[in-house]
Amino acid sequence: MQRTKVAIVGMGTVGSGVARLLLDHGDRTARHAGRVLWLEKAVVRDLRKPRTADLPAGVLTDDLQQVLRDPEIKVAAHLVGGLEPARTIMLELLHAGKDIVTANKALLAQHGAELFDVARKLGRSIAFEASVAGGVPIITNISQCLSANQILSLEGILNGTSNFIVTQMENQGMAYDQAVRLAQENGYAEADPTMDVDGSDAAQKLAILAHLAFGARAHWEDIPRIGIDQLDPLDLQFARHLGYRIKLLASAHLGNTGLELHVAPTLVRAGTPLAEVQDAFNAIRVIGDAVGPVFFHGLGAGQMPTASAVVADLIDTAVGRCKLTFQTLELFSLVNPPRVHLRDADDMPGRYYLRMHVDDTPGVLAKVTGALGRHAVSIASVIQHEPDQHAGKRSVPLVVMTHEASEGAASAAAEEIQTFAQTHGKLIRLRVKA
Amino acid sequence: MQRTKVAIVGMGTVGSGVARLLLDHGDRTARHAGRVLWLEKAVVRDLRKPRTADLPAGVLTDDLQQVLRDPEIKVAAHLVGGLEPARTIMLELLHAGKDIVTANKALLAQHGAELFDVARKLGRSIAFEASVAGGVPIITNISQCLSANQILSLEGILNGTSNFIVTQMENQGMAYDQAVRLAQENGYAEADPTMDVDGSDAAQKLAILAHLAFGARAHWEDIPRIGIDQLDPLDLQFARHLGYRIKLLASAHLGNTGLELHVAPTLVRAGTPLAEVQDAFNAIRVIGDAVGPVFFHGLGAGQMPTASAVVADLIDTAVGRCKLTFQTLELFSLVNPPRVHLRDADDMPGRYYLRMHVDDTPGVLAKVTGALGRHAVSIASVIQHEPDQHAGKRSVPLVVMTHEASEGAASAAAEEIQTFAQTHGKLIRLRVKA
Repeated sequence: MQRTKVAIVGMGTVGSGVARLLLDHGDRTARHAGRVLWLEKAVVRDLRKPRTADLPAGVLTDDLQQVLRDPEIKVAAHLVGGLEPARTIMLELLHAGKDIVTANKALLAQHGAELFDVARKLGRSIAFEASVAGGVPIITNISQCLSANQILSLEGILNGTSNFIVTQMENQGMAYDQAVRLAQENGYAEADPTMDVDGSDAAQKLAILAHLAFGARAHWEDIPRIGIDQLDPLDLQFARHLGYRIKLLASAHLGNTGLELHVAPTLVRAGTPLAEVQDAFNAIRVIGDAVGPVFFHGLGAGQMPTASAVVADLIDTAVGRCKLTFQTLELFSLVNPPRVHLRDADDMPGRYYLRMHVDDTPGVLAKVTGALGRHAVSIASVIQHEPDQHAGKRSVPLVVMTHEASEGAASAAAEEIQTFAQTHGKLIRLRVKA
Repeated sequence: MQRTKVAIVGMGTVGSGVARLLLDHGDRTARHAGRVLWLEKAVVRDLRKPRTADLPAGVLTDDLQQVLRDPEIKVAAHLVGGLEPARTIMLELLHAGKDIVTANKALLAQHGAELFDVARKLGRSIAFEASVAGGVPIITNISQCLSANQILSLEGILNGTSNFIVTQMENQGMAYDQAVRLAQENGYAEADPTMDVDGSDAAQKLAILAHLAFGARAHWEDIPRIGIDQLDPLDLQFARHLGYRIKLLASAHLGNTGLELHVAPTLVRAGTPLAEVQDAFNAIRVIGDAVGPVFFHGLGAGQMPTASAVVADLIDTAVGRCKLTFQTLELFSLVNPPRVHLRDADDMPGRYYLRMHVDDTPGVLAKVTGALGRHAVSIASVIQHEPDQHAGKRSVPLVVMTHEASEGAASAAAEEIQTFAQTHGKLIRLRVKA
């Protein structure tokens, strides 16, 4: 049987999982690839660090040159995190004639244009199934299985850490800090979870999906994003009371005037599939103009789910499928123009949940609803509860659910309401999924 | 731009949808394929029949030879239903050097071994994404995206007609016959829905998935199957009362002693994703040893969802991906041996729901539970309701939920219970999803 020599660069959690699949289940990968995927080298930074994967003699090395200089190594699983030296290593691998499989979404979201252009120019491929939603094979599904469709919308829970934290806050009534600590103890959150909880990680993944599905040229930093780090348990309670759950949703909607992208904590109607995604799971709902709605759900992170995606990409690359697919993918590029433009954030339509604290005095509700009316934001429902003690005076929480309004109008109305003498504290504005 | 000439054989609902996608969205398919998919011929049986799709002059023909004799036509969408002449037409297309895309699961389930062997021998490919679960791309997901995994189990709602009927009975309290009529009026059921409601259609799809996912060589007629045509609304009510819904589930479980396959109405815990699949939707839950559980949900039938799958296959075939994939797929074959053996139905473990009518007299429950105990079937819960009038005497419905037991033991216990003078009518035995 033919052999394709493979290297793993970066033997962290995912790299060790990939090695395990290649070494312990070689028969399986050989069966599916029609050839043996032979692990020739595994490159690490520090040879003295203890390893969980048992590697055959001669495989482990701290010298990337052993991979770059070996023309028989055709494919490299690039599993180095961060931006540098990850970027330089990927460029070196490409220039050395290797096809790439990577799980590094931050690198693609930041330097994708450069990296994909280089790969195209050199006739190489970069496969990146593992970069978005871990074990959920959303990249292949969009770029291949749904290729007869114009994707109309895409909504996903793409950050397992945030979903785990919000699920704990919602189901167990945990405080935010406590839920973050539990996520860290369970290995779902990094020591510094900032990129996860502030929406950056989800925005990076959404950027990759937006390129693939819509031919957009969005840089992740240009995607409006709000994380769960400011989420108040009070809003989880109100949402539940209204029949919703709050999820950190990454959304892309194609409209007549362009593509709308954002990441935000969003009220999702309880009982719908996205609302019921628990713990560290990921899920994506895609609507195609021919296929209708398709829903995918699975483990968005973790050693073996991510390794599963990497090894599937290694097989696809060894077989030759990736090369065929890569040529037509609409990915980050400095030279290829976008096929769709991003919509101005102010024009984006949406429904909103507004929560504020107001004086428990007559006329306040009329004043608030009047402000909304002036900005053409119409009201779907209102909840006003019994008084509580806030900011040293008798104030009550007031929740307004709006009908569809533009982001600009909702924002302007909210700002006006905040200026009233009768409103106190910060007005909370959350999106509501249509 | 390069052109790949395509023929459609069979211009029914799906064929017309495929023509629409190729003709109206040629830019889209060209972008994803890197070449134009050019609809050269559309073969019909009767040229006089009115058509919904507007075809360019010269495309429509009733002469299959125009496809067979044109060496420039590389790919044929084989959209002829039934077994003959569908089988003969596919063989003719293969021998004429065409790669095939088909939606005909009955043909593959019946004659797959012959057809796939011929295709392999001739160096041709048969793509069949549309044959299972319509718009849900489960074939590509199993054969490509999850290829790093040993699939451990696979549970699916694969027959939209049955699911529509059961949903109506459950949610609207409709009688079976009334729900069947509504399914027919909505275009979800054929004039003769036998193959749908008796579990045959789901068994055919399960056979295809079992080949792909496990390397089994199961013929669909050998898969134990029970349909929804015998389902009593009373059991839907009891199931709901117990916190379950009843779904026609197609299941494959890999155990130490082999592969277990069956199609049966099954109690599925309410709130879990499979239980909440409504109307004519399809869904599949796959567990892989690396990826864990992955769940797919979408429209399992209908013109455009099915056409979406066919056109994705046409693109994959034109690009050359199908050829690469087809060589390593473990499909129906007369020459290749199975990789896994089917487990004896009697050994299959499962939980069961048993419902019977018993006399409302002392000692009956002890007799029933005694019989179960003798067959080593242990009891998880019992419901005995107030008396009603049944078979002319005071009898009560008795529902028993068992713990895990072998199919053989549960069946033997049920048979013994039926012989008691105190039990009346048919004992209903349904599976409960683990």
